[in-house]
Amino acid sequence: MIYLDNSATTKTHPDVISVMTDVMNNIYGNPSSLHGLGVKAERLVEQARRVIAKKLDCHPSEILFTSGGTEANNLAIKGVADQLQSRGRHLITTSVEHPSVFEVMKQLEEKGWKVTYLPVDSWGRVSPDAVEKALTDETVLVSIMHVNNEVGTIQPIHEIGQRLAKYPKILFHVDAVQSFAKIPLKPKQAGIDLLSVSAHKFHGPKGIGALYIRKNVEITPLLVGGGQERGFRSGTHHVPGIAGMAKAVVLTEQQTNFLARCQEWKESFLDHITSKLQPVLVNGDVTGEGTAPYIISLSFPGLKSEVLVHALEEEGVFVSSKSACSSKLETPSRVLKAMGRTDQEALSSIRISMGYDTTKEEIEQCAEALIRVVPKLQQVVKVR
Amino acid sequence: MIYLDNSATTKTHPDVISVMTDVMNNIYGNPSSLHGLGVKAERLVEQARRVIAKKLDCHPSEILFTSGGTEANNLAIKGVADQLQSRGRHLITTSVEHPSVFEVMKQLEEKGWKVTYLPVDSWGRVSPDAVEKALTDETVLVSIMHVNNEVGTIQPIHEIGQRLAKYPKILFHVDAVQSFAKIPLKPKQAGIDLLSVSAHKFHGPKGIGALYIRKNVEITPLLVGGGQERGFRSGTHHVPGIAGMAKAVVLTEQQTNFLARCQEWKESFLDHITSKLQPVLVNGDVTGEGTAPYIISLSFPGLKSEVLVHALEEEGVFVSSKSACSSKLETPSRVLKAMGRTDQEALSSIRISMGYDTTKEEIEQCAEALIRVVPKLQQVVKVR
Ligand SMILES: Cc1ncc(COP(=O)(O)O)c(C=O)c1O
Ligand SMILES: Cc1ncc(COP(=O)(O)O)c(C=O)c1O
Repeated sequence: MIYLDNSATTKTHPDVISVMTDVMNNIYGNPSSLHGLGVKAERLVEQARRVIAKKLDCHPSEILFTSGGTEANNLAIKGVADQLQSRGRHLITTSVEHPSVFEVMKQLEEKGWKVTYLPVDSWGRVSPDAVEKALTDETVLVSIMHVNNEVGTIQPIHEIGQRLAKYPKILFHVDAVQSFAKIPLKPKQAGIDLLSVSAHKFHGPKGIGALYIRKNVEITPLLVGGGQERGFRSGTHHVPGIAGMAKAVVLTEQQTNFLARCQEWKESFLDHITSKLQPVLVNGDVTGEGTAPYIISLSFPGLKSEVLVHALEEEGVFVSSKSACSSKLETPSRVLKAMGRTDQEALSSIRISMGYDTTKEEIEQCAEALIRVVPKLQQVVKVR
Repeated sequence: MIYLDNSATTKTHPDVISVMTDVMNNIYGNPSSLHGLGVKAERLVEQARRVIAKKLDCHPSEILFTSGGTEANNLAIKGVADQLQSRGRHLITTSVEHPSVFEVMKQLEEKGWKVTYLPVDSWGRVSPDAVEKALTDETVLVSIMHVNNEVGTIQPIHEIGQRLAKYPKILFHVDAVQSFAKIPLKPKQAGIDLLSVSAHKFHGPKGIGALYIRKNVEITPLLVGGGQERGFRSGTHHVPGIAGMAKAVVLTEQQTNFLARCQEWKESFLDHITSKLQPVLVNGDVTGEGTAPYIISLSFPGLKSEVLVHALEEEGVFVSSKSACSSKLETPSRVLKAMGRTDQEALSSIRISMGYDTTKEEIEQCAEALIRVVPKLQQVVKVR
């Protein structure tokens, strides 16, 4: 089996599983308990917090643990919106965000908020100028993702952060779920106030994530109760998940050439595919600079995503139609449409995404499988 | 080590850990992915849903997975409040709820909701009459816990459910975190519309829980995004946690005499302690009928909870001062105060809580440790 759906989720690293098993067997106390088993669990949590903080070059107290990226995004945006509503009720985002940002914006619109969805260019990129132009006296938050989950496009976060630095009252949230532990991004350097992370995207456990929240930024908690995480996120700590996430971060650091090798494999892959198959469109920036090298998005106009996914599966290759959570909807991808793709082009897309465990051979075999499968499917469509 | 802090959290059962390890190693796909590995993960999730549903005697579609009990309580109460606010803005609860209910009520009060906190008797029990009398035309939800986490008191849920059956528009939420998989409670039989569960309280994984939501009950989701869990709770499924929770339920079913044996041990324990130590107060119903037998709450007026907990720990016995999440606060327990205990009595309480893995010897040794430790501590206090 060749698993190339790493943007949907990754295989948990065996060493992460070992850490979790060890914690479950031996340090099963509640970090809020007074006794020694509680204290041990609390130490693990704080140690993990330091690992995440180091990765983001921030203070450990600026890291909150959540149940994943979706909760981190919901908490960041709703938490700011609720906290700052008296100052203004306008939010800015892009038209290519993950549903866990997009749907939050929709929910807030229903509650009377104004939301600007900025357009993107044909590579899926938003313009820093456009962000600045969209600011009003009512704007309290700008939320823009780092790496797009469907096409891999990298947004100009530093440039946007620079523009926003002139407006210190407007907060900047970045959904870094697809980039954290892959493409460095330091919130302080980039002028980011809140940043979302999810462990299962980098070989960590499912059900755990984190939110960076800059010191002195106040948000209204979504989950209240026992007052864990300084009151920002109540609920008994998912200690094995937290320890597992930290382990996953450490493991990614041991592989220093991840981006370079993905870039090399992606280039050969695209050369091979585009020379052998017609018609094929590469979605996102093809020059290499502006797209995460571990995500490849292709459209095969005339074919259907689902059909392609299943045909590749018969060849032992697992890829996605678009993003995992929308893969069961028969509508064209909102992201590809925003990039100017036609319905037909958007409905014929597949996403190939690499993880830290992906090999060169797997990418080559995926290309071979596509080269076998696509002409056959095109033949079937023609005959019909 | 004698671990008697099972109401804070339990040791994950080794078979639960095996299931989780197996899932992480082999079925790591995203249930939302179209390919076979996604389908396998989705099947696991649906299988687990059926296990939880069977336990509650409800339809699988009435079970939502959450990140734990805190999220289930927040989702139930805020979800109903947001959905039904146009009908009225009054909620009813008790003064002895867990913070994940109590603090939600406080948050809603700040947003203009009216909340009635019903008093309890000296055993910590709310009166069904009082519930009915508190209802107004504005009431949309009654939220009352099944088993109290600090003293074990069982609320008269069936009687309350019967009263509320006359008011079909008023919803009934029950926090069953401390009772699920221990004391049977079937939502349909008891007239319950929403019911919260958390896996780590019955030897399942941390970071996973569930909310029963009766068919046709609408709630506003707290976490929006990919549309998982029928749109009620977005976020990539915590598949190993979900499978582990189901395994934990099945494992508890293999031990049929849990309540009976806890009851027997608790009675001997209390006989022993009350005959040897003075002064000691038993918090909760001592007749045995109205309190969960796996929770024992005692007060040793004159001593301090923290001091007792640490002295017992030196004897190898791990217990709690009050509930885990408030154990670091130096304020007297809100629950014990509501039951009429004085500050001094409330500040001298300890909670001993049993799990499915607790043995008779452990309870006996805990009693012996108390009998050794308490007189010594009393001596110290006297001399001072
Ligand atoms: C860009 C992006 N943001 C947020 C999420 C949500 O994270 P999680 O799956 O942990 O809920 C995902 C993945 O699903 C994502 O790709
Ligand atoms: C009665 C009760 N409700 C809710 C909770 C919260 O559940 P969780 O720890 O899964 O967030 C707890 C335990 O912490 C509890 O005892």
